[in-house]
Amino acid sequence: MSDQQRVAVLQEPEHMTVETRPVPTPGPGEVQVAVRAVSVCGSDVHYYDHGRIGGFVMHAPLVLGHETSGVVSAVGDGVEEPVVGTRVAVEPQRNCGRCEQCVRGRYHLCPHIAFFATPPVDGSFAQYVVVPATRAHPVPDALSDDAAAMIEPLAVAVHAAGKADIGPGTRVLVTGGGPVGLLCLQVARARGAGHVTVSDPVERRRAVAPDFGADAVLDPSVQAAEDVPPVDVVLECSGVQPAVDLAVAATAPAATVVLVGTGAQVTLPLDVVQSRELVLKGVFRYAHVYPAAIALAASGAVRLDDMVTSHHDLDGAVDALLAARHDPEAIKAVVRPG
Amino acid sequence: MSDQQRVAVLQEPEHMTVETRPVPTPGPGEVQVAVRAVSVCGSDVHYYDHGRIGGFVMHAPLVLGHETSGVVSAVGDGVEEPVVGTRVAVEPQRNCGRCEQCVRGRYHLCPHIAFFATPPVDGSFAQYVVVPATRAHPVPDALSDDAAAMIEPLAVAVHAAGKADIGPGTRVLVTGGGPVGLLCLQVARARGAGHVTVSDPVERRRAVAPDFGADAVLDPSVQAAEDVPPVDVVLECSGVQPAVDLAVAATAPAATVVLVGTGAQVTLPLDVVQSRELVLKGVFRYAHVYPAAIALAASGAVRLDDMVTSHHDLDGAVDALLAARHDPEAIKAVVRPG
Amino acid sequence: MSDQQRVAVLQEPEHMTVETRPVPTPGPGEVQVAVRAVSVCGSDVHYYDHGRIGGFVMHAPLVLGHETSGVVSAVGDGVEEPVVGTRVAVEPQRNCGRCEQCVRGRYHLCPHIAFFATPPVDGSFAQYVVVPATRAHPVPDALSDDAAAMIEPLAVAVHAAGKADIGPGTRVLVTGGGPVGLLCLQVARARGAGHVTVSDPVERRRAVAPDFGADAVLDPSVQAAEDVPPVDVVLECSGVQPAVDLAVAATAPAATVVLVGTGAQVTLPLDVVQSRELVLKGVFRYAHVYPAAIALAASGAVRLDDMVTSHHDLDGAVDALLAARHDPEAIKAVVRPG
Amino acid sequence: MSDQQRVAVLQEPEHMTVETRPVPTPGPGEVQVAVRAVSVCGSDVHYYDHGRIGGFVMHAPLVLGHETSGVVSAVGDGVEEPVVGTRVAVEPQRNCGRCEQCVRGRYHLCPHIAFFATPPVDGSFAQYVVVPATRAHPVPDALSDDAAAMIEPLAVAVHAAGKADIGPGTRVLVTGGGPVGLLCLQVARARGAGHVTVSDPVERRRAVAPDFGADAVLDPSVQAAEDVPPVDVVLECSGVQPAVDLAVAATAPAATVVLVGTGAQVTLPLDVVQSRELVLKGVFRYAHVYPAAIALAASGAVRLDDMVTSHHDLDGAVDALLAARHDPEAIKAVVRPG
Repeated sequence: MSDQQRVAVLQEPEHMTVETRPVPTPGPGEVQVAVRAVSVCGSDVHYYDHGRIGGFVMHAPLVLGHETSGVVSAVGDGVEEPVVGTRVAVEPQRNCGRCEQCVRGRYHLCPHIAFFATPPVDGSFAQYVVVPATRAHPVPDALSDDAAAMIEPLAVAVHAAGKADIGPGTRVLVTGGGPVGLLCLQVARARGAGHVTVSDPVERRRAVAPDFGADAVLDPSVQAAEDVPPVDVVLECSGVQPAVDLAVAATAPAATVVLVGTGAQVTLPLDVVQSRELVLKGVFRYAHVYPAAIALAASGAVRLDDMVTSHHDLDGAVDALLAARHDPEAIKAVVRPG
Repeated sequence: MSDQQRVAVLQEPEHMTVETRPVPTPGPGEVQVAVRAVSVCGSDVHYYDHGRIGGFVMHAPLVLGHETSGVVSAVGDGVEEPVVGTRVAVEPQRNCGRCEQCVRGRYHLCPHIAFFATPPVDGSFAQYVVVPATRAHPVPDALSDDAAAMIEPLAVAVHAAGKADIGPGTRVLVTGGGPVGLLCLQVARARGAGHVTVSDPVERRRAVAPDFGADAVLDPSVQAAEDVPPVDVVLECSGVQPAVDLAVAATAPAATVVLVGTGAQVTLPLDVVQSRELVLKGVFRYAHVYPAAIALAASGAVRLDDMVTSHHDLDGAVDALLAARHDPEAIKAVVRPG
Repeated sequence: MSDQQRVAVLQEPEHMTVETRPVPTPGPGEVQVAVRAVSVCGSDVHYYDHGRIGGFVMHAPLVLGHETSGVVSAVGDGVEEPVVGTRVAVEPQRNCGRCEQCVRGRYHLCPHIAFFATPPVDGSFAQYVVVPATRAHPVPDALSDDAAAMIEPLAVAVHAAGKADIGPGTRVLVTGGGPVGLLCLQVARARGAGHVTVSDPVERRRAVAPDFGADAVLDPSVQAAEDVPPVDVVLECSGVQPAVDLAVAATAPAATVVLVGTGAQVTLPLDVVQSRELVLKGVFRYAHVYPAAIALAASGAVRLDDMVTSHHDLDGAVDALLAARHDPEAIKAVVRPG
Repeated sequence: MSDQQRVAVLQEPEHMTVETRPVPTPGPGEVQVAVRAVSVCGSDVHYYDHGRIGGFVMHAPLVLGHETSGVVSAVGDGVEEPVVGTRVAVEPQRNCGRCEQCVRGRYHLCPHIAFFATPPVDGSFAQYVVVPATRAHPVPDALSDDAAAMIEPLAVAVHAAGKADIGPGTRVLVTGGGPVGLLCLQVARARGAGHVTVSDPVERRRAVAPDFGADAVLDPSVQAAEDVPPVDVVLECSGVQPAVDLAVAATAPAATVVLVGTGAQVTLPLDVVQSRELVLKGVFRYAHVYPAAIALAASGAVRLDDMVTSHHDLDGAVDALLAARHDPEAIKAVVRPG
């Protein structure tokens, strides 16, 4: 094995190059993963376009990519598992383990967290990455490399859906039919939800949602919220004001709205939030859910491969980032750096 | 329509006859249901054998049967829905609506509850029954009459599973592979459980469980609890001490044990309950879950018809009660009084 | 007893008169209460000034007043308790008892609710009112008539604080030091909160808060949120944007913000709500808490009488409404219609 | 400072001696605490008498004592706080920090936990102990050395009460009026409980309970459970069958029973547990509650010093252990090793 690897680096917004860099060596408790697949997230595209997301700003070249699968290619001192050769889904976060959040079991809220492709931490548009052994989660053969990469966004959906009490009979609205919305839809279904509606102003997304289990779709640009049957849970996956308006308007009394989609700020009608005693919950990434997400995908309850609409090599990473822009039918682009 | 109907009456333990009785008339807010199917429950068999279950004692002839479907045949004053002709699953309980439990939303714990086939309240081994309109739940065409009757035990399972936080990744043990156990298994699956084991000393039950979604089965008479991988949730569906022993022994720390199976008393190892900080929850019938159970069955996530192993007419009600005794392959017997 | 009574009626905004009206007769299940004390709420003042609160608009003369105590003066058919002569705190809401919200135990969210002094339902600036017997809650001698009236706003605080998990060690921020804020402060204290800060831009309110148990006060107009030690729970009692901004900014990760103060709309920084995984809960009035509020006040854990700063007779009802406007030291004005 | 210290060692059941041993040196992240006070727990007495508690068996000499206060006398590498000279309450447990329980925030359930005075881990009947810096919790001047030691059993009570939703209006029964029972009583009070009853067959304990806030006391040997008004929460602090029987019998529907008192096994009436839908929760020590317990004691809401009934030096450790046996009025004996 060479000690050099190829890495796609975002030098500055809209300027990505492929560089040669040293292959990283796993330290104690760490594993090196030979990357097989990296699916593209909207946040990667946002960094490509703007060099920042809110308060997270690129001040130096950045490697994008955080939805990652691969094979363990080397292990550091003290690592008993996973062993070399294990296919894994990579949980792209490293927490301190000692702060109040970590010891309370909320490691994703650790103020010292290092997360792939979030400045200044490099991501996985690379041939090799090194992560803590505990964040390299073995996957069964039933999962393809692409699916194993997409365990990451699935983890977002599993975590988000877990914040609401979704079970048999629950009426759910998913606002936003992009990749995370489709995964939230599928997780709601897998939890036994009674009825799931997906709203999106984009026709293509409304067309696809029923394939992934939606009972109904809704075009918020033409349908009034009052016409939507009230729901017990909203998984808000867009982060935009009109979707939040719909999310709140569509609730039954005592409903829960989980705020998954990222954005700057949202305005809420206080009187509705109060007169229905709504509960709103912000969610941030995920913790403790990779094994559950893997099991869900392996069981077939959630279909990941069907969401992949294009493949690219490392030199085509920019094409992967821009796939959704050029192809209205694109859902998930996957980079295969190998 | 005649004003007389045929009713199977348990005169005293082990002595059932079919009588002619007046067809009941619905009062205000009530509906009359022409009974299509009544599936048999272990409690019916227990009354047939012993004339009592714990503190509930027959002091007079009793009509058995409480798992009931039918068609609305008449409605009382003020009833707008369901209309005559609607196929319904009958929720066999009538609460006072005014006590502390009712106003708190726990109508199933109402001390004044009247429940089918629980002395002195007659059940549904009859051609017609009268129930509050709110307890006659419409069912879609997708549900057979048999399945609609079995919404009742499914409601038990939905309620029980709802007491534990079962979702993607949850490791579940169902102790007892009888009808309620098989339904708990299916509901756990429908909630996305990661792995479900069913334990039962009866071979036939272990053989059937995988057909309904069990990942593993376990014979508690030969397998030590220590050999069972620890679980997050136990749905204890047998009510017998060895099963409770297994239930507690198989738990991971912070697990929940839901006590579904009925029995007299159970002994717990206090040190295990404490050192693992277990949560044990007693459940009693159900409340608010019929629509959810109907939706779950209609979606195909739970299979009810496959659990029916024999049909009987009203004159064969005793055969239905004794079916499980004579046929080791019996799961659910159904009486069709029509 | 005369069959006529005196009632203060808001004819239109800023125009209140005292009229003679018939004494209402209790129907079945109802009691008639001779009103002893009615404490004034900000909502009464708002109707007086504007004739409306949000979507609730006066289209006809309205009797204000909903924080009410009195003595049972007559009972309707079927009422066993409270008996005539019982001193009671009046819970000023009447729900339908049959809708989904009522049967779920959330009677305060009943869409058919009739609430005192909310158009078109008259309130208690009157000598007699009639309420369901279940809404006339007996009070012990330890509670004064004023305190018994103020059980109503205390119920708001008990309900709101009950939505957050406040217990020993919990760090609490109460935004808004008006009457409801002072009651939330006291309830947080009574639940064992570890540290309670009250913020208010009004100096007089900051001066008073320590008397009711605040460990610290904060002037949001001069102090930056970053300087506030993070809290686990915010009880937001003002409904204005700067307070909501402070509420969110002051949270520790995984904190809960209870939205008590009413207002039109509020804007939230989505990134903060998400990166801290905040939970926001709207609350609406209260349900099931009158006995708890009475016990709390009777125990001395909450001091109500110390919040009363003026008394008025029925002819002085307008003075009571305007007391807070004219006297910067006013907290609660009480009308005694007797 | 000498490098030798005096330590009271249980050589075998009923045989304790005072030895000279080296003063332990703090390693990285650890602090050395000069012990000021060690209050005696029933578990210490049990080891003295029997050399074991359930599965925990002494196979070698053991230092008893785990309720500990002192002053930081030295710090290991990397420790920034607490600094030398800080008065602290010592949380007597050391967890691995890496297992599933630890990363989930349940460090007290860590299978690798080392707990003071639990074989083979020595306790604090000594002049010096070494603990992780994070387990030496600073206490304010308001707390005496005795009170700081008793933060440990108070932590048990805070943790136990935190498992039930005790707040304003909650009706609570504490079964067992020993030290932990009296602390549970006080914590329930500090959380605003509406009514607290303490049951104990020992007259002296019933006599003392009202001094610590009990509204009522109960002699279970003469009073039938049916005569006890139903409660929402039971804090079971004795671990014996008659108390568990009373605990279950006294519950209202949907009540919670927290199992605090240790014992071998308990038998439950399954029909009652089910027909009332009771929730039973085992608790094990505590986690994350020392700061809360310290704040509670410092606020005066819980009185610890009033529970101390005798003091002893290290040579009198046996007298401290046997104090409760010889003096019916004894509640808590304290050893001061200094």
